[in-house]
Amino acid sequence: MKYDIIVLGSGPGGYVTAIRASQLGFKTAIVEKENLGGVCLNWGCIPTKALLKSAQVFEYLKHADDYGLSVKDYDKDFDAVVKRSRNVADGMSKGVQFLMKKNKIDVIEGYGKIKPGKKIDVDGKEYSADNIIIATGARSRELPSLPQDGKKVIGYREAMTLKNQPKKMIVVGSGAIGVEFAYFYNSMGTDVTIVEYLPNVVPVEDEDVSKQLERSFKKSGIKIMTSSEVTKVDTSGKGVKATVKTNKGEEILEADIILSAVGIKSNIENIGLEDVGIVVDKDKILVNDFYQTNIPGYYAIGDVTPGQALAHVASAEGILCVEKLAGQHVEALDYGNIPGCTYCSPEIASVGLTEKQAKDKGLDIKVGKFPFSASGKASAAGTKDGFVKVIFDAKYGEWLGCHMIGAGVTDMIAEAVLGRKLETTGHEVLKAVHPHPTMSEAVMEAVADAYGEVIHL
Amino acid sequence: MKYDIIVLGSGPGGYVTAIRASQLGFKTAIVEKENLGGVCLNWGCIPTKALLKSAQVFEYLKHADDYGLSVKDYDKDFDAVVKRSRNVADGMSKGVQFLMKKNKIDVIEGYGKIKPGKKIDVDGKEYSADNIIIATGARSRELPSLPQDGKKVIGYREAMTLKNQPKKMIVVGSGAIGVEFAYFYNSMGTDVTIVEYLPNVVPVEDEDVSKQLERSFKKSGIKIMTSSEVTKVDTSGKGVKATVKTNKGEEILEADIILSAVGIKSNIENIGLEDVGIVVDKDKILVNDFYQTNIPGYYAIGDVTPGQALAHVASAEGILCVEKLAGQHVEALDYGNIPGCTYCSPEIASVGLTEKQAKDKGLDIKVGKFPFSASGKASAAGTKDGFVKVIFDAKYGEWLGCHMIGAGVTDMIAEAVLGRKLETTGHEVLKAVHPHPTMSEAVMEAVADAYGEVIHL
Repeated sequence: MKYDIIVLGSGPGGYVTAIRASQLGFKTAIVEKENLGGVCLNWGCIPTKALLKSAQVFEYLKHADDYGLSVKDYDKDFDAVVKRSRNVADGMSKGVQFLMKKNKIDVIEGYGKIKPGKKIDVDGKEYSADNIIIATGARSRELPSLPQDGKKVIGYREAMTLKNQPKKMIVVGSGAIGVEFAYFYNSMGTDVTIVEYLPNVVPVEDEDVSKQLERSFKKSGIKIMTSSEVTKVDTSGKGVKATVKTNKGEEILEADIILSAVGIKSNIENIGLEDVGIVVDKDKILVNDFYQTNIPGYYAIGDVTPGQALAHVASAEGILCVEKLAGQHVEALDYGNIPGCTYCSPEIASVGLTEKQAKDKGLDIKVGKFPFSASGKASAAGTKDGFVKVIFDAKYGEWLGCHMIGAGVTDMIAEAVLGRKLETTGHEVLKAVHPHPTMSEAVMEAVADAYGEVIHL
Repeated sequence: MKYDIIVLGSGPGGYVTAIRASQLGFKTAIVEKENLGGVCLNWGCIPTKALLKSAQVFEYLKHADDYGLSVKDYDKDFDAVVKRSRNVADGMSKGVQFLMKKNKIDVIEGYGKIKPGKKIDVDGKEYSADNIIIATGARSRELPSLPQDGKKVIGYREAMTLKNQPKKMIVVGSGAIGVEFAYFYNSMGTDVTIVEYLPNVVPVEDEDVSKQLERSFKKSGIKIMTSSEVTKVDTSGKGVKATVKTNKGEEILEADIILSAVGIKSNIENIGLEDVGIVVDKDKILVNDFYQTNIPGYYAIGDVTPGQALAHVASAEGILCVEKLAGQHVEALDYGNIPGCTYCSPEIASVGLTEKQAKDKGLDIKVGKFPFSASGKASAAGTKDGFVKVIFDAKYGEWLGCHMIGAGVTDMIAEAVLGRKLETTGHEVLKAVHPHPTMSEAVMEAVADAYGEVIHL
């Protein structure tokens, strides 16, 4: 079979690429070894959001009397919570099946390996294409000191389908995946300790955001050890013992399960990159602005390439890649304007430079901050934790960064992304009338604060 | 006492104006006859959002098993729900007190009446200023056929502090106030019927939004009578009997209480407008682009002027008014880019032209729509009701309108407001990378739909 485009991998990079390719008139196939939708849909973004929603509702049950309601007899059914999450994932995967069919994309099931001459071998059967797009994604990274056995030392995948809820859990790593699971399990009643190597949790975020999350998490009972490292794990007993090196010395933690959430590793092994001669550096396939590898006809997008390893980045890259192939005039993706979201409570969303990054660049900046404790909507909704923080270039007025922590902020960051894309100034954000009463007013007020015009502080 | 500026009325128009005036260096006073914060804070936006949050949490209790949770014994405490709402309002009002003090604004308690010579009489004591800003707001409008007795036929004010929860309630009018109370009382267990004079509920919204809300409300048990009118009310018995004229003839509805939510009436009586000679037309004080009335030194902002009667409009007008007085270069407010929000479930948020308005203007348009049923985040969160609809000018690419109904959309509309202010095209919205998985992706997808590039449909 000969195609215009074959996409290897059907995660949010691959399947979106295939749909856009088909829209643009390319005869397209997609190769998938497991479930359509990849990790994001089946083992990542989507099922975790389902778990987190159950946790959020469970929190409402616990705190119903805050809202003038009473609940006497309530519980969670851990199995049912997990099952709901699986059902949501299955539904979404079926949705991708439907989209493939609707867009007349051939789905080739099996393990694909690229070959020279723009060919792909799928379990012994060969397919060729004018263009091959590699979108094989990534998996949970394993630390040598923390080998995953899938039972007592697990990755995100096992963490979302545990048969029994652990009583005690250690979460190693406090990026998005780590803190989301920490929040979920703590909310369900598990005793959770986070161990983070760096001095702050969610270390890629602005330091103020990290501090706020740490406060909120501690208030909800999650234990946090920063500047700490798991150096040894003993799984020989009933549970698991972790040796944690801290600033104050060594400590032994006991738990039922350790979740390793220390980042990801690209899926670049055993997919034929060496046969074709595609250049790889630091675990990533090197590509140009339009995702072409060093070998003509071979492209790569998503987690296997150097940009942020996020679903929306993979989708955007894939769309740009095929639009360029279709001869459209496309602008290269601005990796400085990619939002990142974390869906624990309070939620975190950010885009652009942190205050520290801006200062390290030697920029003269104006910083504004508006706490939700001063927001009428937050008071009414009982969601006063958190804030919006904005950073502007003092000289040119450029909106350098926006950092949010609080209820619903993952849906609010889009304003900052679009504003920054359109090269807004703070003044224009200020004069865009934000509806009252909303959490989004905090964006306007934070900008006002940066310029000495804040009203509600 | 002599001031630079005296503001008459301390609602979200007045108090925000006073703060901005003080920031700009004006010696400022504010006159209030009742509670700082006006209707919005004490009897409107804020306390209703508190009630609605209790309703939302109560819905979670009812549907806990959808999330893998079980609740056996639960109830609402209507008094406690109302009390929480009053506490939130009181807290916000105290917050405004604090802001007045912090900004060194003199609060003059009492009933103010403007007088010629830029004076205000407050209960017999006279104050003068270089500039007087009228911000007296509005109140519930009374229909001749539906006189409010405050007991069986009530306005929004009584509706948020009822001593006893009514078993049956008729809500007359289905604007934001009507549908918010209908949702709240229905959720609490009251049997609710909405009577709307026009053919659709929330008649200022895009027709697709009205239809969706009608479907969602009916599903939740609210009865809806459109193209219907209450012509007579009989309060002589135990409850109240309303004669409703419908397309099919007359019907008698019985209830404990009728809530009249048929719009508002400006507070322009007995505040001295005639003495000063300020021109009023159709219940509104006429002003120029910078809120000056026909009499120099007298300004008016907020619900007493012709713009949308919304808190955020009043605040924006007041800020512009005093910035102009301070000699700043200010642009007139764009009343075509004012968002409107309704906080029932599903929420409604919109800005710009509806599809019908755009067509009536003879514009050649592109329309895109993305239902939350196709959103991964909505699936995970169990919030699949609703959609985002966008309208673009086919020729110039202008973003003419954005209409949303669904969970959290009142916080999502800011993106459209800012985008429209910055004169974005659809292409730029599409290429602004929206984080996955969020409800905000629906904005990007709706825009993609308008241009034939939607991925997830």
